[in-house]
Amino acid sequence: MKETFVKQLKNVQLRKPILIEGLPGLGLVGKIATRYMIRRLKAEKFAKLYSPHFPYYVLVNKKGNIRLLQAAFYYWKNPNGENDLILFTGDSQAQTIEGQYEISDTILEFARKHGTETIITLGGYRKEVETEPKVIAAATTPKLLKRALEANATLSPTGSPIVGTAGLILGLARLKQVSALCLLGETRGYLPDPKAAKSILQVLQKILNIDIDPSGLDKQIAKAEKIVEKIRKMEEERIKRVEKAKKEDEDRITYIS
Amino acid sequence: MKETFVKQLKNVQLRKPILIEGLPGLGLVGKIATRYMIRRLKAEKFAKLYSPHFPYYVLVNKKGNIRLLQAAFYYWKNPNGENDLILFTGDSQAQTIEGQYEISDTILEFARKHGTETIITLGGYRKEVETEPKVIAAATTPKLLKRALEANATLSPTGSPIVGTAGLILGLARLKQVSALCLLGETRGYLPDPKAAKSILQVLQKILNIDIDPSGLDKQIAKAEKIVEKIRKMEEERIKRVEKAKKEDEDRITYIS
Amino acid sequence: MKETFVKQLKNVQLRKPILIEGLPGLGLVGKIATRYMIRRLKAEKFAKLYSPHFPYYVLVNKKGNIRLLQAAFYYWKNPNGENDLILFTGDSQAQTIEGQYEISDTILEFARKHGTETIITLGGYRKEVETEPKVIAAATTPKLLKRALEANATLSPTGSPIVGTAGLILGLARLKQVSALCLLGETRGYLPDPKAAKSILQVLQKILNIDIDPSGLDKQIAKAEKIVEKIRKMEEERIKRVEKAKKEDEDRITYIS
Amino acid sequence: MKETFVKQLKNVQLRKPILIEGLPGLGLVGKIATRYMIRRLKAEKFAKLYSPHFPYYVLVNKKGNIRLLQAAFYYWKNPNGENDLILFTGDSQAQTIEGQYEISDTILEFARKHGTETIITLGGYRKEVETEPKVIAAATTPKLLKRALEANATLSPTGSPIVGTAGLILGLARLKQVSALCLLGETRGYLPDPKAAKSILQVLQKILNIDIDPSGLDKQIAKAEKIVEKIRKMEEERIKRVEKAKKEDEDRITYIS
Repeated sequence: MKETFVKQLKNVQLRKPILIEGLPGLGLVGKIATRYMIRRLKAEKFAKLYSPHFPYYVLVNKKGNIRLLQAAFYYWKNPNGENDLILFTGDSQAQTIEGQYEISDTILEFARKHGTETIITLGGYRKEVETEPKVIAAATTPKLLKRALEANATLSPTGSPIVGTAGLILGLARLKQVSALCLLGETRGYLPDPKAAKSILQVLQKILNIDIDPSGLDKQIAKAEKIVEKIRKMEEERIKRVEKAKKEDEDRITYIS
Repeated sequence: MKETFVKQLKNVQLRKPILIEGLPGLGLVGKIATRYMIRRLKAEKFAKLYSPHFPYYVLVNKKGNIRLLQAAFYYWKNPNGENDLILFTGDSQAQTIEGQYEISDTILEFARKHGTETIITLGGYRKEVETEPKVIAAATTPKLLKRALEANATLSPTGSPIVGTAGLILGLARLKQVSALCLLGETRGYLPDPKAAKSILQVLQKILNIDIDPSGLDKQIAKAEKIVEKIRKMEEERIKRVEKAKKEDEDRITYIS
Repeated sequence: MKETFVKQLKNVQLRKPILIEGLPGLGLVGKIATRYMIRRLKAEKFAKLYSPHFPYYVLVNKKGNIRLLQAAFYYWKNPNGENDLILFTGDSQAQTIEGQYEISDTILEFARKHGTETIITLGGYRKEVETEPKVIAAATTPKLLKRALEANATLSPTGSPIVGTAGLILGLARLKQVSALCLLGETRGYLPDPKAAKSILQVLQKILNIDIDPSGLDKQIAKAEKIVEKIRKMEEERIKRVEKAKKEDEDRITYIS
Repeated sequence: MKETFVKQLKNVQLRKPILIEGLPGLGLVGKIATRYMIRRLKAEKFAKLYSPHFPYYVLVNKKGNIRLLQAAFYYWKNPNGENDLILFTGDSQAQTIEGQYEISDTILEFARKHGTETIITLGGYRKEVETEPKVIAAATTPKLLKRALEANATLSPTGSPIVGTAGLILGLARLKQVSALCLLGETRGYLPDPKAAKSILQVLQKILNIDIDPSGLDKQIAKAEKIVEKIRKMEEERIKRVEKAKKEDEDRITYIS
């Protein structure tokens, strides 16, 4: 394997499909959102992507079965007769600069081959404080951006770069005159963040006019919040211990002098 | 030399050969096991593999003779009329991600060219405590995995990645519908570990139904254990010294206050 | 996108054009100078350069519009009937060694295709003290160097390497018998340095016999100097605080003994 | 420039030429020795080698003239009717693993094209103590190694790798059945070491049966020794200062308690 390639599992005819991309990144936001949609919509896998730019290890499943790192394309036929969906997620992003460009390009070309005229990439956006997560939007066309803002997304701050596949696909899409939108859920980013994923899905279902029911993520959110709370307490106690030790040291020094 | 390539030294006809792979890795487990089999079975070298992804130095032997880093394929004709063996080991793994994929692919393609339908890769599996080494197994097919478990291997924990060539060959094999099994001997991993290699060979000879007599490794194991014991003692003494120095410091401070 | 490529936006006929190159580097000197010329001369964009060796992120503008990192060629028709200009600047330099060579080569080939016989690359040159910035010159031909020295540039010290695209283009140009000159404005380099850029433009307008009016940079220079002054004060105060704390510590120790 | 390439400056017919290679490395030993031979024998440059794997900067000479990093082939016609020489040295080694293999291969192929059947690579060999530098030898054939040992070289210790171009050329030469010898002058390696280079030349002139008169390096050796002596003294004084400060601290603490 010298290059990134796509292995098609099934031939499907799609009606003006929109590609939704969500590889792992900050807070796993894009991946959690995309996986949730795939399960919710019962989307079907129809192609796999492999790359020598993924990390050089393999994964073992519960049955001791091994597989390469990979990403996959799923499709969903829209019963309302509107745009079908192609959903894309996977195990990892590329590990090298050139790999990042190569994989983004491969995804884009696959989508174009299937008639895609609109792409929406999902990811996380780092925030420093604990607030309700906004959804940050940027796009290759004003029209698509407007749709996102009308669905309660917030305009991206100027100049802040969008790193990795979620960004590069947009950059490359613009070059090839494909409309593309990037939705980034605000997250602290140090742990998987289903709450940020939910906020993206709320925007996304308005844009797509599909019922995804993001509340199905609530259980996962509650669980994640417990973990965050636990870590916060451990950190607090660690700080108390450090301060106590420091105070004792100072007392002793004061005593000496 | 721009790419990994194989230099064939001899043409051989093999009967449904099984490829055994063991490049250097954690505790050198895979390499020690494979080399032991090569010597024990008097397997004969019939091809060499070179790669610009190996480290950029050469080795000098006892006679001052120089050679590139390399890996080699050996063959063994099974007198019982069952599967012949191809054994593969070498000096090093690839130093880059892309090199790892390229070399694993080259090994797999060479094996397929010689009619290989089954591959077994060997390696080490990190454990944190000093216990009898288990042999961890994962595979591309349930059938092959079952054979390993019946030969006393232990099912691999879910989700733990298998890094490097031993893993990638399985991932790539599955893509190309070749059955492949990975056997990893538990090891602390910081020193060459012939004991872990022996535990693999015990599993392997049951799977292959060949007598390899792994007890020939016992002398090497005894030697390795002496070294480990020596290091353990040095470490103990170092800790004692540190603690003593610490105590003296504390005494002095107590005295001051 | 596997390779660096140029996307031509418009076909233009240029008269013996001189290429001016200024990608971001030390103190952003080359980029500031080139951008200033582009605005001043109202040069028009006619080609874009993309590369998988640029960093793997995209930029968002004020309107939430996204684009790939890129560089661009602008042209300016000289009303005096002398050499036209091609001006080249962009978002970033290549991130890998091979990328640096590839991008420099692509720029050079584009320039040659448009009949360029002379190239001038701009950049920063690190100095350790705060003095009026000199302009350091080096070239591929004595004739071109002489023109720079007559325009008040200073001969480059021997042996000091010129790093990045500004240097490599000259090295490659010499190989292909294109005359090339490098002008480096002295700068501390830790902040954007419009003063160093101005000093380059003063030399450049003499060489090119064009009125660029570098004084248009004065406002930007005043602003930059205020920032430098502010940082200097903050640093001074930090040092004072550290020294005070140190003194207090010493006093206390003295008191103990 | 995508690949390493050789630019031939002049066509020359050589009689069974021996290639001598000495790129910069440990203590610059190989480069100093090769350059000395080039000057001594008045060898003439006849080809240049360029590579995108060299570092991405250019050099400026005394006249402000710029050039790419490069390496060059020189030839010397042997008046005794014995083997002619090709001498190869340059500014730098490759910066990547793959580049190291590519450049070594390019040098080897150029030498073969000119009828070379014997290659001698020169370099440094790290030693920890200050003794008369021995010359360490390793080779691809016993015959060539014997010639080196008879000329007072010392057999290379087993297992110690030879890093970089000086080693890789031998590894690749052996693959292509070209005889090759590596001579490494012992050196501390942290400064240019003409003494180690001289020791190599003394061995080399016996092997080649040419008078190179290595004593021409004596002035450079004396100069280098003065620098080493100066550094040694500075280091001694630094240690004394540290020890004095430490003692004062201890005195004070003793006083406290």
